[in-house]
Amino acid sequence: MKSLIACLFLFSFFMKDMHSVFAIGEKNIPQLAWEVGFHRDKNRKPEEWYPSAVPGAVQLDYAKAKNWGPYWYADNWKDYGWMEDVYWSYRVVFNKPEAITGQKIEFFSKGIDYEFDIYMNGNHLFYQEGMFTPVKIDLTEKLRDINELVITIYPAPKAHNKARDRTQANRSAKPAVSYGWDWHPRLIPAGIWDETGLRIVSRSGLENMDIDYRLDDELTTAYVTMDIAGPEITGLLYEISVKNQSGDEIISESGKISDTNELIHFEIPDISLWWPWDQGEPYLYDVDLKLKKNDETVETVHRRVGFRKVKLVMNPGTWQVDGFPKSRSNPPMTMEINGRQIFCRGTNWVNPEIFPGVISRQTYDTLTDLALKANFNLLRIWGGAIVNKDPFFELCDEKGILVWQDFPLACNPYEGTPEYLAVLEQEATSIIHRLKRYPSLVMWCGGNELYNNWSGMTDQSLALRLLNSLTYRLDPDRPFIPTSPVMGVGHGNYVFRDMATGKEVFQWMPQAHNTAYTEFGMPGPSSVEVLKSFIPAGQLFPPKPGTAWETHHAYKAWVGNTWLCEDMLENYFGRSGDLETLVGRGQLVQGQGYKVIYEEARRQKPYCSMALNWCFNEPWPTAANNSIVMWPARPKPALDAVSESCRPVLASGRVSKFSWRKGEEFTVDLFLLNDSPGNIPAGVMSVKIIGDGEVELLRWDFPEVPANQNLQGPTARVKMPDWEGEIFELLLEVDNNPQMNSVYTLLYLPDPAGEKSSVPVLND
Amino acid sequence: MKSLIACLFLFSFFMKDMHSVFAIGEKNIPQLAWEVGFHRDKNRKPEEWYPSAVPGAVQLDYAKAKNWGPYWYADNWKDYGWMEDVYWSYRVVFNKPEAITGQKIEFFSKGIDYEFDIYMNGNHLFYQEGMFTPVKIDLTEKLRDINELVITIYPAPKAHNKARDRTQANRSAKPAVSYGWDWHPRLIPAGIWDETGLRIVSRSGLENMDIDYRLDDELTTAYVTMDIAGPEITGLLYEISVKNQSGDEIISESGKISDTNELIHFEIPDISLWWPWDQGEPYLYDVDLKLKKNDETVETVHRRVGFRKVKLVMNPGTWQVDGFPKSRSNPPMTMEINGRQIFCRGTNWVNPEIFPGVISRQTYDTLTDLALKANFNLLRIWGGAIVNKDPFFELCDEKGILVWQDFPLACNPYEGTPEYLAVLEQEATSIIHRLKRYPSLVMWCGGNELYNNWSGMTDQSLALRLLNSLTYRLDPDRPFIPTSPVMGVGHGNYVFRDMATGKEVFQWMPQAHNTAYTEFGMPGPSSVEVLKSFIPAGQLFPPKPGTAWETHHAYKAWVGNTWLCEDMLENYFGRSGDLETLVGRGQLVQGQGYKVIYEEARRQKPYCSMALNWCFNEPWPTAANNSIVMWPARPKPALDAVSESCRPVLASGRVSKFSWRKGEEFTVDLFLLNDSPGNIPAGVMSVKIIGDGEVELLRWDFPEVPANQNLQGPTARVKMPDWEGEIFELLLEVDNNPQMNSVYTLLYLPDPAGEKSSVPVLND
Repeated sequence: MKSLIACLFLFSFFMKDMHSVFAIGEKNIPQLAWEVGFHRDKNRKPEEWYPSAVPGAVQLDYAKAKNWGPYWYADNWKDYGWMEDVYWSYRVVFNKPEAITGQKIEFFSKGIDYEFDIYMNGNHLFYQEGMFTPVKIDLTEKLRDINELVITIYPAPKAHNKARDRTQANRSAKPAVSYGWDWHPRLIPAGIWDETGLRIVSRSGLENMDIDYRLDDELTTAYVTMDIAGPEITGLLYEISVKNQSGDEIISESGKISDTNELIHFEIPDISLWWPWDQGEPYLYDVDLKLKKNDETVETVHRRVGFRKVKLVMNPGTWQVDGFPKSRSNPPMTMEINGRQIFCRGTNWVNPEIFPGVISRQTYDTLTDLALKANFNLLRIWGGAIVNKDPFFELCDEKGILVWQDFPLACNPYEGTPEYLAVLEQEATSIIHRLKRYPSLVMWCGGNELYNNWSGMTDQSLALRLLNSLTYRLDPDRPFIPTSPVMGVGHGNYVFRDMATGKEVFQWMPQAHNTAYTEFGMPGPSSVEVLKSFIPAGQLFPPKPGTAWETHHAYKAWVGNTWLCEDMLENYFGRSGDLETLVGRGQLVQGQGYKVIYEEARRQKPYCSMALNWCFNEPWPTAANNSIVMWPARPKPALDAVSESCRPVLASGRVSKFSWRKGEEFTVDLFLLNDSPGNIPAGVMSVKIIGDGEVELLRWDFPEVPANQNLQGPTARVKMPDWEGEIFELLLEVDNNPQMNSVYTLLYLPDPAGEKSSVPVLND
Repeated sequence: MKSLIACLFLFSFFMKDMHSVFAIGEKNIPQLAWEVGFHRDKNRKPEEWYPSAVPGAVQLDYAKAKNWGPYWYADNWKDYGWMEDVYWSYRVVFNKPEAITGQKIEFFSKGIDYEFDIYMNGNHLFYQEGMFTPVKIDLTEKLRDINELVITIYPAPKAHNKARDRTQANRSAKPAVSYGWDWHPRLIPAGIWDETGLRIVSRSGLENMDIDYRLDDELTTAYVTMDIAGPEITGLLYEISVKNQSGDEIISESGKISDTNELIHFEIPDISLWWPWDQGEPYLYDVDLKLKKNDETVETVHRRVGFRKVKLVMNPGTWQVDGFPKSRSNPPMTMEINGRQIFCRGTNWVNPEIFPGVISRQTYDTLTDLALKANFNLLRIWGGAIVNKDPFFELCDEKGILVWQDFPLACNPYEGTPEYLAVLEQEATSIIHRLKRYPSLVMWCGGNELYNNWSGMTDQSLALRLLNSLTYRLDPDRPFIPTSPVMGVGHGNYVFRDMATGKEVFQWMPQAHNTAYTEFGMPGPSSVEVLKSFIPAGQLFPPKPGTAWETHHAYKAWVGNTWLCEDMLENYFGRSGDLETLVGRGQLVQGQGYKVIYEEARRQKPYCSMALNWCFNEPWPTAANNSIVMWPARPKPALDAVSESCRPVLASGRVSKFSWRKGEEFTVDLFLLNDSPGNIPAGVMSVKIIGDGEVELLRWDFPEVPANQNLQGPTARVKMPDWEGEIFELLLEVDNNPQMNSVYTLLYLPDPAGEKSSVPVLND
């Protein structure tokens, strides 16, 4: 397949899929060099043109041309503000390929951000609003000896100019995050953001290929339907080959196409199912379609297919609604894969870059590896962000990571104007068509927090009724929820200690009773070397508002003094004398806080079925953030803590508060958490606390724990000893099974009358 | 228009709408006489044929032929059980009309229940599953001199034979109620249930006419689009006339049709809006379309159109969600008509007859008049029942009664099988197309109690996602909710005193905090003369289980000893010595209980926006039921009580319990309830209790109360006097405004040590 690809354009790209193009020799193709420039009048040309990297962003091209410093350093991003309100034009000049006679040449793009016109040799060819709908234009009849293709990008869409915030994204399908968020600067990307160029169109006329299947009740046989469509495919011969993961060809079908829309049916017995990594193997089959005219191959298409069945089912315990007047039960939030109800441990994925055009397969590969390292089996792709490019889904398919995909709506009252609904329908249809093939994709969601007062949408909002309708029509076998949270699901808290009630995560989380925790955050600072990379040296310590600390979200980002939470840290530990100490304390609190939530959510299984922290990564360097991965892909220490708490099988302890004093009764409720498809064998767990001495509290002889079930054990108690030191550890050890051991770090306050007496010791 | 109608068939029917037929003189038409018979083998003919009333029901024809007693007397209904499992065939023999040459003759039906084949002269013409999709078959080419048309109805659809209950209706679009309910016997109707016959098809070729409109923001101008479609209408001339309610022609448009799908636009300035009766005038316009070929009129269509804007908006106070983890806000349940948020006082409408074929315009007229008498402004058409015939909606349009229409799903786990989804899509599409023209219709609902454990459907159920999709696609401007209750909305209680907690309606209702109460019931016995009409004399008193009392729902109908609730009545009043006393007490409790709920729901405005009791009417004579109208259309005393509590404007008092003793402190919280678009003028309310004496508690000088708002006043208190008698009255009188006066009947227990000491006196 790859040998058939023609690289007609400046950058290389992979055609792993539809619309293969046939080589016409590089000798025929002039090197294509994109240029870009801005103009304030739509109908004027740029006064200056700069070299452009495609895909990329107009901002990056301009900054490079002007030798600007990195946009992520200090407050450099503020220099980009004017760019959102001008037109940007790309142009490329190319010679007519010599061998073009009798073949078609097509301009294509997988994504242009956001509203644009396309001109060829001065003639208007195409207009589109929407960055998720691919573009294909047959240029053949318009080619001259020398050709100029121009793409003019409109100013960033804005519903109003009353405030420079996310509400401006309220009538567009452009991700809202770049309009400014509590962890994202105001910097609105524009430009060609995915594979784009010229190509020779296949001579087969194939326009679409879908592979659908249904499984029998035993999930052992797949009944496959290949839907092949194109106005000129009638009469071609087809050859279909299906290979298993070992490369053995298990299906070989051939025949003649008798219609412009041919349905080819075959069945695959004894299938290996696709599973998320913690439940089985993410088994993929290779399906190859070859179309032939006489003996000549005129088209090949390759797909990877995974067979699995996904449902969203009721959480045990949620059907019951007591008393009268009686309302409805909460909606289902338990992911059932291949008939097995599983617990989803995961995270909210945000844009890994401010400029999506620079996101590569490598970006996705590194970040999804970190997700595996965190023991996550599900990624929620948050609706304020872009819909990822194909390599992301290919990697999730291969690595066995479940994906929940929001549509690009977040925290706004998207209004049901005919214009917005038309764009949303176009964009959502494109997104569904592109992604429905991926077995890792297990859920659609209308968008983020739309049924809350800061968004103002309701069940009657036409945009969400449209998305429900489209997913029902185009992809009915995949669950859809209108937004997150739905009723019964919780978002937040986003701090270790609640601002309003003073309750620590150790208290508020065990008191919560939700079917799923689909957002919760623990802020932590970035590591020292990262801070030094973007905060000018003179601003580094002590951190202060009004510096790069603030514009990188350490201060005044969300409620209270987030995200650095200096006050709280000082309250627990006293003043930090240097940057390293401050960062160390902040990162400790972040990790320990996340451990509490993930493990408590898992203890609440099966009533609770999901725990996804806010957030996984970040699109630029923050000074402090709820993320556990620093931009571009460096884990915070919290990732290791989360990884421990998200092991499929572990010993777990519930503690009632963070800081403990000499003489207090320390208690820990013991659990064995099992999200795995295998039993935990019977054994012995020992419980110790370790400060400057070690005390064993208990040894628990526990029975076998069945697959995908937890077991609650005894509560261990001890009077806190008289120790030196600021912290101590709770250690749970399983004899002969050290990979289940868990350790928790807690604060030790030896002297209630001493200098730390102002530290609040909260009781549950 | 009416003069153009040909009555080709046995019964008369009104063609107020599409597909007018042109007279060909009765001389050409033989009298048509339908016959019906049953057969156990689908391919055999009935052994006997009986005369049939069309529309009607096969059961009624058979019973009449066999001289059976009424199906509603005693246990006679049990004799009909076998009829659900056999085939029934209708036949009609008719001569070819003489003047048919050059014209088309069509068989049509507005409804055949439920699955059927149609044959003509032995040839199979048509098959359909579904009673809500009209049938049209062109017979012209198939006519012989003498013709036999046969309609074969299949046995009642049953998902299984494990239990003879509503779960058998789980895979069909047939209303579930006839499979048995706590107020409906197991009696499954079958047959032709709406207008059906032969007709000469108009020569215009007109196939569809839709009238759509949008209103400007000020709701003063209607921009009307008439969508006229038919394969042969191109070239015809059209004349459109719009008349206001005074008969003045305000619009006159004409032109030539240039397409098979012609859109004709015009605007109507200074419109009078359609309002529910308590908020304004239900103003209707008459729209007439005339199609002409040269000078000859070939088609006329008449429509009544009401202009109004409807939205379902958030209830004030429901956006706020406290604390973390934070879930979503409750869904909106406030009806906004023409920009005004109104409180809906109404009821759940069930089938007025077991056999829908006998429901006439007169049935609807009488019952909707009773709804007006009850001061209801909204009827919820419950999903266990049929979708009413057109005259129902025409009457609601005219009388200004809002209609909430459930789709025919209720209390079942309707499964998303492809077969069921196909039937549901066909039926729902037909229902939406038929009803969307009626301004009185203000809401679609997926069905009854589907998101509760006794139904087992969830937000992921494909049937409900389909209904959302269809209503979005075909009728996006009308609200849709997936089921009732949605979150925040309450169903129940259905008894005066809760079985589990012992709380009276006086306690549980003020403690409830719902956005809408869309079902709540108070059981009461039918009146004595009604009971005597269907309960054999020997079983009348005392009522006992195992008699017609039980099969008519007085015993073991729902939980506890419902619906007669004899135990509770005895508990309050002591044993009743005769039928009249028992019925009087039961009816008193029913009426007073309903008063508490309706008025308390109204006091909770604006957080609460709706109060609909369960239920309005009933399809046969019950011995006791939550209904306030006895079959066929006789009001219970509770209707008068409800009518008092549903006056748009009234004085209202909240009392904490039903029975009071000498010396206790009686308290009443005073309110003025105003659901009207006018202010209540300032005035004085006096508060009295009246037993064998009269005590004035308070006079309240109240200020003006704004339109559609309530006002809470003081709490009046008094020590209960030493009276004789079993009951006393609380009287609220408004000086010079007696139409606002309210009276409540309560129990008086003079002697705490006496024989009634076992009566529980509950405190709130």
